[in-house]
Amino acid sequence: MSNKVSVLVAGSWGTAIASVLADNHLDVVLWSRNEQQVTEINMEHLNHRFLGDVKLSERIRATTSIAEAITDAKAVFVVAPSAAMRDVAAQMRPHLSRDTLLIHATKGFEATTLSRMSTVLAEELPEYDAASIVVLSGPSHAEEVIKQSPTTVVVAAEDSTAAEAAQDLLINNYFRVYTNTDVIGVEVGGALKNIIALGAGLTDGLGYGDNAKAALLTRGLAEISRLGTAMGGSSLTFAGLAGVGDLIVTGTSKHSRNWRAGYLLAQGLPLQSVLQQMGMVVEGIKTTQAAHTLSRKFGVTMPITDELYAVLFEGKTPASAVEDLMGRGKTQEI
Amino acid sequence: MSNKVSVLVAGSWGTAIASVLADNHLDVVLWSRNEQQVTEINMEHLNHRFLGDVKLSERIRATTSIAEAITDAKAVFVVAPSAAMRDVAAQMRPHLSRDTLLIHATKGFEATTLSRMSTVLAEELPEYDAASIVVLSGPSHAEEVIKQSPTTVVVAAEDSTAAEAAQDLLINNYFRVYTNTDVIGVEVGGALKNIIALGAGLTDGLGYGDNAKAALLTRGLAEISRLGTAMGGSSLTFAGLAGVGDLIVTGTSKHSRNWRAGYLLAQGLPLQSVLQQMGMVVEGIKTTQAAHTLSRKFGVTMPITDELYAVLFEGKTPASAVEDLMGRGKTQEI
Repeated sequence: MSNKVSVLVAGSWGTAIASVLADNHLDVVLWSRNEQQVTEINMEHLNHRFLGDVKLSERIRATTSIAEAITDAKAVFVVAPSAAMRDVAAQMRPHLSRDTLLIHATKGFEATTLSRMSTVLAEELPEYDAASIVVLSGPSHAEEVIKQSPTTVVVAAEDSTAAEAAQDLLINNYFRVYTNTDVIGVEVGGALKNIIALGAGLTDGLGYGDNAKAALLTRGLAEISRLGTAMGGSSLTFAGLAGVGDLIVTGTSKHSRNWRAGYLLAQGLPLQSVLQQMGMVVEGIKTTQAAHTLSRKFGVTMPITDELYAVLFEGKTPASAVEDLMGRGKTQEI
Repeated sequence: MSNKVSVLVAGSWGTAIASVLADNHLDVVLWSRNEQQVTEINMEHLNHRFLGDVKLSERIRATTSIAEAITDAKAVFVVAPSAAMRDVAAQMRPHLSRDTLLIHATKGFEATTLSRMSTVLAEELPEYDAASIVVLSGPSHAEEVIKQSPTTVVVAAEDSTAAEAAQDLLINNYFRVYTNTDVIGVEVGGALKNIIALGAGLTDGLGYGDNAKAALLTRGLAEISRLGTAMGGSSLTFAGLAGVGDLIVTGTSKHSRNWRAGYLLAQGLPLQSVLQQMGMVVEGIKTTQAAHTLSRKFGVTMPITDELYAVLFEGKTPASAVEDLMGRGKTQEI
């Protein structure tokens, strides 16, 4: 069988995954629409916009041709922004073999349909076996993975042999991969944690302490888990790497762009200026909107999401949002 | 009814609890064996050794007499180190009325018997209704609570009216209190998280990144939850404030003395020197020993605890402990 794997697209996380695969002696083809980025990766082994001066493996080759990237690959990793997933999948369709392992690592819902990413992929790739679509998630800052810092992730598919095949491709001495069959839980956990990461940036930006942040993350986990189980995920998944693990890393690390967006909001910057300053996609903002709608659809209480929604879209001040969260009535924990 | 509540003893957490109670307009009596500390609290409103220059409320009065502290109090908070709990309980016995609410906030097991703190209290206070003993836990650095930084905690008792009474005494606009009935889960979660906090200090001290720490905390939570449920706790409690919440705050904050002990161990300092440098009780060290024994008694796998045990008591180097954790066989997440 071929030794070729491909990664679409060349953002920071896609490039980090490409780097793990290259370290595992696979021939990696990285797809990007950006001609200049492709040249930079092929000639200088750099992806400067997303990863600064980090030198990439020479086993990573870039191309602007999706046909060239996918054809004959034994596995395709899709790491597109959630808003681009449907379009990327449609472009993949003519070239994707049923025998190719399909893994996605995108955290978010489609804004218009509120669909999970594996659903979007299954809809746009009707010839492909939906039960074999794998999702990769977990606490994994690209900046650390690319430096081979110890990292753990989870891969989930309804068909456990597909998840195990993904595990075999990725696992090595710094990248530890666990399998799971709860696709819904892994996808919902990965998406919703970005909301809480925004909130964590916000409390940090307001100057609150570690106790407040731990409270936010814990009660945030509780509401993620409430919505996620209502949507069909398992509560055990939310207690795992794609739930609490990813929540911790995104909520306590300054690498996180969601955390950073929340931090800037707390400084009093309006949403538009924050987005301009970031210059990258901030999944947590669209996800807050999606979760706000989903919580009503599934009849689930999500006080933190509601307060963040009010801050992002209704002009509520961050300080009064936190006050309102602390001032709720006396309740039982569970 | 009297407006008097008492807190035993005047460590950092005991003094912080006293401070919350004073802010709630209760008359607080703080008990300490240390004459000099008592004088300092009464005359200068300072507890310098534990809380530096923080000015205490004038509603807090200190005494060296346990009889004076407890008699006629409507509630007694016991915050003794785990090694002193049995002795403090025995001293309380002649003075404690059955009508006094009894709350403890000590995180650890008794080293010799591996008993939980509420069991020790029940054994030494046979006249007192064991189902009414309340445990207070959660992500709450004393240094932040005393500055009125937003904090959430959980109070648990088998008898829910006792937990609600504790909630009523403590709750205010910066200290949010949830009730729970899972005493075992809250006590075990609070004790075991100190092990993982030690481990977090260790990975930080070795220079690993946020991904590694999130992995440690998540897999640490999984093994806490495995032992805790085997001991009779509820998995929901471990996903709550006394589990994941406390784990996050202790594992990601430099206030934590367990984190600090792990950090020093990673620098190559032997255990004895670390303990000397700390000058305070490091509950996580004895708890590692206790959990190591309990995991065998209950037939539960605890790989992180085992590696820490090897580092603390068998001379294993921190770096090879982390390597061995990352190099385990391929497994499923749940």
